[in-house]
Amino acid sequence: MPTRVVEEDGAEVIVGRGTVDMKAGVAVQLKLAAELAEPVADVTWIWYDHEEVGEHLNGLNRLAREHPEQLVGDFAILGEPTAAGIEGGCNGNLRAEIRAFGTRAHSARGWVGVNAIHLAAPILDRLAAYEARTVVVDGLAYREGLNAVGISGGVAGNVIPDECMVHVNHRFAPSRTPEEAVAHVREVFEGFEVTIVDLAAGARPGLDRPAARAFVDAVGVEPRAKYGWTDVARFSGLGVPAVNYGPGDPLLAHADHERVPVQQILDVEAGLRSWLTGA
Amino acid sequence: MPTRVVEEDGAEVIVGRGTVDMKAGVAVQLKLAAELAEPVADVTWIWYDHEEVGEHLNGLNRLAREHPEQLVGDFAILGEPTAAGIEGGCNGNLRAEIRAFGTRAHSARGWVGVNAIHLAAPILDRLAAYEARTVVVDGLAYREGLNAVGISGGVAGNVIPDECMVHVNHRFAPSRTPEEAVAHVREVFEGFEVTIVDLAAGARPGLDRPAARAFVDAVGVEPRAKYGWTDVARFSGLGVPAVNYGPGDPLLAHADHERVPVQQILDVEAGLRSWLTGA
Repeated sequence: MPTRVVEEDGAEVIVGRGTVDMKAGVAVQLKLAAELAEPVADVTWIWYDHEEVGEHLNGLNRLAREHPEQLVGDFAILGEPTAAGIEGGCNGNLRAEIRAFGTRAHSARGWVGVNAIHLAAPILDRLAAYEARTVVVDGLAYREGLNAVGISGGVAGNVIPDECMVHVNHRFAPSRTPEEAVAHVREVFEGFEVTIVDLAAGARPGLDRPAARAFVDAVGVEPRAKYGWTDVARFSGLGVPAVNYGPGDPLLAHADHERVPVQQILDVEAGLRSWLTGA
Repeated sequence: MPTRVVEEDGAEVIVGRGTVDMKAGVAVQLKLAAELAEPVADVTWIWYDHEEVGEHLNGLNRLAREHPEQLVGDFAILGEPTAAGIEGGCNGNLRAEIRAFGTRAHSARGWVGVNAIHLAAPILDRLAAYEARTVVVDGLAYREGLNAVGISGGVAGNVIPDECMVHVNHRFAPSRTPEEAVAHVREVFEGFEVTIVDLAAGARPGLDRPAARAFVDAVGVEPRAKYGWTDVARFSGLGVPAVNYGPGDPLLAHADHERVPVQQILDVEAGLRSWLTGA
């Protein structure tokens, strides 16, 4: 993808698809890997493919399967965009299909049937009224969420529908287990059929570990919670605490107007260099 | 389609696709057309194709276009299934798309967006709470209806959706004009975008006309309102009052278990014969 450098408000910005997620982070890593012959930490640099395509293709999964010794460590840093901040852990992720059932009928005699879309009204009411928690885990605040991401129902323009499905996505703090998240969603939608279609544990930030603490101190920025599910959760699953630390606004990832300030690239380079050189 | 005669509860029943809608009605008409050389009324027998396929194919529309003189008359009878009752007029029919709009966002940071599916909750609430009227027109009671017949929304499992559409179907009494029905639907869904996608006027039963009255008296059954939209509305549009009168339960039309009691076929034959012979 063609990338270009522009000046915005007196600052250099690199514009183009992939600059944020995550060419800029990779560029910093490649530079440090080439320049730092003897880092003070025992570093394994890993670059992998298919991060977001699917479980079975994910390069980190493949590496964990085929070369697990490469992933042994006290602490991992992912170059995911964080606008040069340190973002620890991540929320868990659950998707479920919530269904209401009625009885089909011709809409000219609607009273003969039971309209499943009308019966689904409380599902949307509960979503609209839902107050998401903010949960502090290992010192970082995680904001949860419960959202409809899809809705479908209907047979034809003259038929009272017998089924309505609301596809919901629940993001839950890493202090909540996947099983607790499932129980919570079933409780919210009591009275309706709930089918879990996707479930991934969150990751605690793990900033109480000495190796993580040393990194945070060297970089000198205050860690905050990560909201998006990233591969830190895979490291967490392997018993390795992990944080995200990279240039670029994560909200711009995958966007047409993806762009990263050069200063953030330099900041991340300086932060990692400070830690890896003990300076 | 193969059709067979079975005995149910001691009565003969003809079973098979199309028996109700409307082979049985056509059979009665063909028999009377063949047997009654000199009916007391000036009868035009019309059998046409593509009744339900689409406006442009409908045989009655084609006849009205190409041979309008064939459709001149004081009164029309359609052989649509009415379980041998007389059903007059029909409700009007409106379909509309009701839309709520929000702002897209990644569902990991749902609070950045505005969830259009959550915003659609009042649409379903209003539908669920809607109390349909029953309206008496020319002595017949028409039951109205307002139903969701479809709902859709959603972009992907990790995206806060920016649009939700509820497809609604309104059946309105023939005393209400199509314009009044549109105004009513816009009022019910005030605050949401309303797009009318289909609109057909109802038909008053027209039983105050002398020719219709004579038919009803000859058959000797009490007329009732027709709920489904049928081609009586096309006759009504041409200025000819029309009723439905035919064997078979209309709720079985198009159903796998379509079946018609032989007695209803005989009743309708007797009713029409009584009227056409003045007996």
